[in-house]
Amino acid sequence: MSLDPRINDELAAWDRDHLLHPTTHTANHARGDVPGRIVTGGEGVYIEDRDGKRYLDAFAALYCVNAGYGRTEIADAISEQAHKLAFFHSFAGQGNEPAIRLAKMIMDRAPDHMARVYFGLSGSDANETNVKLAWQYNVLRGKPEKRKIISRWRAYHGSGIVSGSMTGLQSYHARFHLPLDGFLHTHSPQYLRRPDADMSEADFVNWLIGDLEAMIEREGPDTICAFIGEPAMGTGGIMPPPESYWGRVQEVLERHDILLIADEVVTGFGRSGQMFGSETYDLKPDFMTIAKGLTSAYAPLSGSIISQRVFDVLMQGTDDFGPLAHGWTYSAHPVSAAAGIATLNLIDDMGLVENARAMGPVFQEALKDAMDGHPNVAEVRGVGLMAAVEFAADPATRDWFAPMTVGPKIAEAMTQRGVIARAMPEANTVGFAPPLCITPDEITIVAQTLRAAADEVLSQ
Amino acid sequence: MSLDPRINDELAAWDRDHLLHPTTHTANHARGDVPGRIVTGGEGVYIEDRDGKRYLDAFAALYCVNAGYGRTEIADAISEQAHKLAFFHSFAGQGNEPAIRLAKMIMDRAPDHMARVYFGLSGSDANETNVKLAWQYNVLRGKPEKRKIISRWRAYHGSGIVSGSMTGLQSYHARFHLPLDGFLHTHSPQYLRRPDADMSEADFVNWLIGDLEAMIEREGPDTICAFIGEPAMGTGGIMPPPESYWGRVQEVLERHDILLIADEVVTGFGRSGQMFGSETYDLKPDFMTIAKGLTSAYAPLSGSIISQRVFDVLMQGTDDFGPLAHGWTYSAHPVSAAAGIATLNLIDDMGLVENARAMGPVFQEALKDAMDGHPNVAEVRGVGLMAAVEFAADPATRDWFAPMTVGPKIAEAMTQRGVIARAMPEANTVGFAPPLCITPDEITIVAQTLRAAADEVLSQ
Ligand SMILES: Cc1ncc(COP(=O)(O)O)c(C=O)c1O
Ligand SMILES: Cc1ncc(COP(=O)(O)O)c(C=O)c1O
Repeated sequence: MSLDPRINDELAAWDRDHLLHPTTHTANHARGDVPGRIVTGGEGVYIEDRDGKRYLDAFAALYCVNAGYGRTEIADAISEQAHKLAFFHSFAGQGNEPAIRLAKMIMDRAPDHMARVYFGLSGSDANETNVKLAWQYNVLRGKPEKRKIISRWRAYHGSGIVSGSMTGLQSYHARFHLPLDGFLHTHSPQYLRRPDADMSEADFVNWLIGDLEAMIEREGPDTICAFIGEPAMGTGGIMPPPESYWGRVQEVLERHDILLIADEVVTGFGRSGQMFGSETYDLKPDFMTIAKGLTSAYAPLSGSIISQRVFDVLMQGTDDFGPLAHGWTYSAHPVSAAAGIATLNLIDDMGLVENARAMGPVFQEALKDAMDGHPNVAEVRGVGLMAAVEFAADPATRDWFAPMTVGPKIAEAMTQRGVIARAMPEANTVGFAPPLCITPDEITIVAQTLRAAADEVLSQ
Repeated sequence: MSLDPRINDELAAWDRDHLLHPTTHTANHARGDVPGRIVTGGEGVYIEDRDGKRYLDAFAALYCVNAGYGRTEIADAISEQAHKLAFFHSFAGQGNEPAIRLAKMIMDRAPDHMARVYFGLSGSDANETNVKLAWQYNVLRGKPEKRKIISRWRAYHGSGIVSGSMTGLQSYHARFHLPLDGFLHTHSPQYLRRPDADMSEADFVNWLIGDLEAMIEREGPDTICAFIGEPAMGTGGIMPPPESYWGRVQEVLERHDILLIADEVVTGFGRSGQMFGSETYDLKPDFMTIAKGLTSAYAPLSGSIISQRVFDVLMQGTDDFGPLAHGWTYSAHPVSAAAGIATLNLIDDMGLVENARAMGPVFQEALKDAMDGHPNVAEVRGVGLMAAVEFAADPATRDWFAPMTVGPKIAEAMTQRGVIARAMPEANTVGFAPPLCITPDEITIVAQTLRAAADEVLSQ
C-alpha cells in the first residue's frame, strides 16, 4: 500500500499540513522543501522507507534503537502486555507487574549505592524529575537556598524548559527565554578545542576545574544544588572527557556538598562499553537519568535512579509531610515496562554490552583507517559505540570551518549513499552511534561511506 | 502464576525495595504500609488484581482509560505497529505513517482555526511545549516581555517544574520551590465555594473577572503571555464553570492580547459530552493540550494542537532563524500513534462521545437519587462523564469538613465495596470519571456504592 503513489502523495500532504515535527525547519517542511523520509520498517542496523529504499542507520534513530530494528522479542512482549493489561496507574502505591519486575532488573544492574527507580517517559522529563527531587532533598535538609544547577556548554539534557536550560546549545535556548535563572554552564571538557593549543591535557583539566571552582565560589557553594553531566557528551559532539576529568570534578562536588546527576540517557545500557557510563568513568552519582537504550525506543520509557542517601531524606519527608506529590499519569506504564524487560533480556542474550565494548575500538580504527591522510580530519574520537570525526579547514593551525558548514553536507552525502550519520551542532562533526549489534562488516561500510562523502564534499 | 503466593510475596517485596511510585507516601510504601494493588487485567469498566479481586473502576485509572479495559482493537494496533516498525524519530522532517495519519485524524476533529499538532508523551510535557511555543510566539512578534502565565488555584496541569507551577494545588508546590516566578494564579470558578453565600452566580462571575482584570492591570498586560485553563476543572475537584464564565474570560484575554491554552487532557475526546471541552464551553483556544483519552492510555502519547495564527508566526520564525529547536526523542512515536488511531476509531465505532453525552445526566441523576436526603451533601455536580459529590459538615451553613478528612475515607470505603472513585484534594469531594462506555446499570452500582460508603463513614 505504501508504494501506491496516490497514497504516498496523500500521506506526504497530510504530513505537511497537520504535523509539527520536532526540531525541524517548519516553514520548509510545510512547503514540502524538506525531503521527509517516511520510515516503514527495519531489521538489525537497517531501516527501510516507504519507497523501498534501505539505509544503514549508524545513529540508531537518535542513539536509541540499541538492540536494532525488527526485534520480535520486544514487539512480542509489548503485544502480550497490551493484550493483558495495557494500563493502570501507579499512584498511591498502585502498580503493575512489569513495572515492578523492570525496576528490580534495573536496580540489579545499577551501582550498589543506588536505591530506587522512578519511571518517566522521556529523557527530558527524567532530568526534570531529578532536579525536582534534588531541590526537595535540600529543602528537607533545611538548605532551601541550595538550588542552582551547574551544567556544561555543549551538554544535551533535553528540550523542556528546565531540561533545555541545562542543555548547553545555543539553538535550544534562543527565543525560548532559556536558560532560566539559576541554571549555569561551565566549560565542556573537549581537549581538541582547548583554549590554547599548547596546553597539555593535564593543564586543560586544571583549567576546567579552576573554572568550575571559580563559578562555585562566585555563586556561593551554599546556593549550588547539583552538577549534571553526560558521562561522555553526546549531542554536543560525542566527546569523551580527558582521563582525569571526572575524578577531579567529583572531588570538587563532594567538597561543596553538591549532588551529581549522571545523565545516562545515551550512555546507559551498554553504549559506552559498560552497562553504564558511570562505570566506564568511575562516577558515583546521586541521580542517574535513563531512557533510550532502556527500551531500545520500542516504547517511550525513561527513569530516574536515585541514591540511597537522597532516597532516605525523601522517605523521611513523606513521614513528616505526607505523600511526595510528583507523578506523570504514565509513570511506570505497563506496556513500556514490558518493552524494557524484553530489551534488558535481549541486551544480555545478544551480549550487546560486550559487543559495544569489542566493536568500539574496531569502529574507531575503521574510521581512522578510512580517513587516513585526509587533510581536514581534526580528530577521530569515541568510546564504546559512540564515535565522531571532527573536520577543520586546517587541523594543524586549528583553523576551523564555520560551524555547520561542512558537517551537514557530509552527513547528507552519506545519506545519499545509504548510510545515516548525524551532523553534530555548533561544529563540523559527523557523529555515529549505531545499534549495539553492529558487525565489523557493517562498520566497514560506515567508515568507507564517510570517506567517500567527505571526499566528495571537501574536494568541491 | 500471579496467584502463586511465593511469587506474589516476591513481587510485593521488589515493589517496596526498588520502585519509587508517583505521588505516594514513600515511607509507608517502603515499609509495606500502603496496600498496593497490583493490577493484572481488565475488561470494560472493570479491573482485576493479582489476587483475583475485581473492581468497577469509576475513575478510568486517572480519567484516561476512556474506551475501557481489554480493548483488543487497540492492543492489536499496538502489536502490529511494534512488529512492523517500533520506532524511528521524527526530527528534521523524518517520520512514520501512523503519526501522520493520527495527526490528520486529530486535526479533522479539532476546531477549524487550529493548524498543527505536535506530539509529546505526557500531559505535563504537552503543557510545557505550549508554554515554550507561546513564549517563542511573543519573542518573534517583538514582545519578549509578554511572558507571564496566568493559571488558576485548584488547576491541575501536570507535575513538572513549569507544568507544576501552573498547577494550583498546594501539595504539588510545597518543598519544590514552586510556582516559579512569573506563573500566577487567579481564583477557581467554583460557585459552591463563592466568597459570600449571598452572591448570585452572575455576581460571582463578575467577582472572578474583576480579580482577573485586576491581576492583569497590576502585572501589566504587556507582561502577560497566556492564560491556561481546563475547560471544566478536573483534579481540583471536578468543577464545571458557571455558564457565563468562559465568554467573559475570553473577552478579557482578547482585549489584552493574551493567548488561551485550553488544557483538554481530561476533557479531550469525549469526556465532556462533546469531542472537546472547548466545544462544550465555546472556547477558541490558541493551544489545546491533549493526552489521556487520545490513546485511552494504552500507550503514552500527548499532543499540543496549535492555532493557525500562532503557527504562522512560528513558521516565519524558521524562515528567519532556522529550525524550531524543540523536540522529545519520542515525539510522534509510531507505536503510540498506532494506539491513538485505533482509539479514535473506537471512539467513533462505539459512539463513546454520544454515550458520554447521554450518560452524563444519567450519572448525575443516579448520584442525586442515591444521595437523596443525605445531610452532608453540599453539591452533586458534573458535565458529561465527569462528576463529583462534595461533602460538608453542614451544607446549609457552609460548615465545611476539614480538608481531606472525610473524602478519602468514603473513597476507601467504596474501594472496599469494589468500586474505585477518587478523593479530590483540598476538600472532601468524591470524584468520578469512568470509562466512557459505562452503562446505566454500572452507573447505578457506582451511585449506590457511594451512598453505602458515605453512610458508613459519616454515621460513625
Ligand atoms: C544525554 C541526553 N539526555 C537527555 C535527552 C533527552 O531525552 P528525550 O529526547 O527523550 O527527552 C537526550 C536526548 O537526546 C540526551 O541525549
Ligand atoms: C488537566 C490535566 N492536565 C495535565 C495533566 C498532566 O498529565 P500527565 O500526568 O500525563 O503529565 C493532567 C493529569 O492528570 C490533567 O488532568
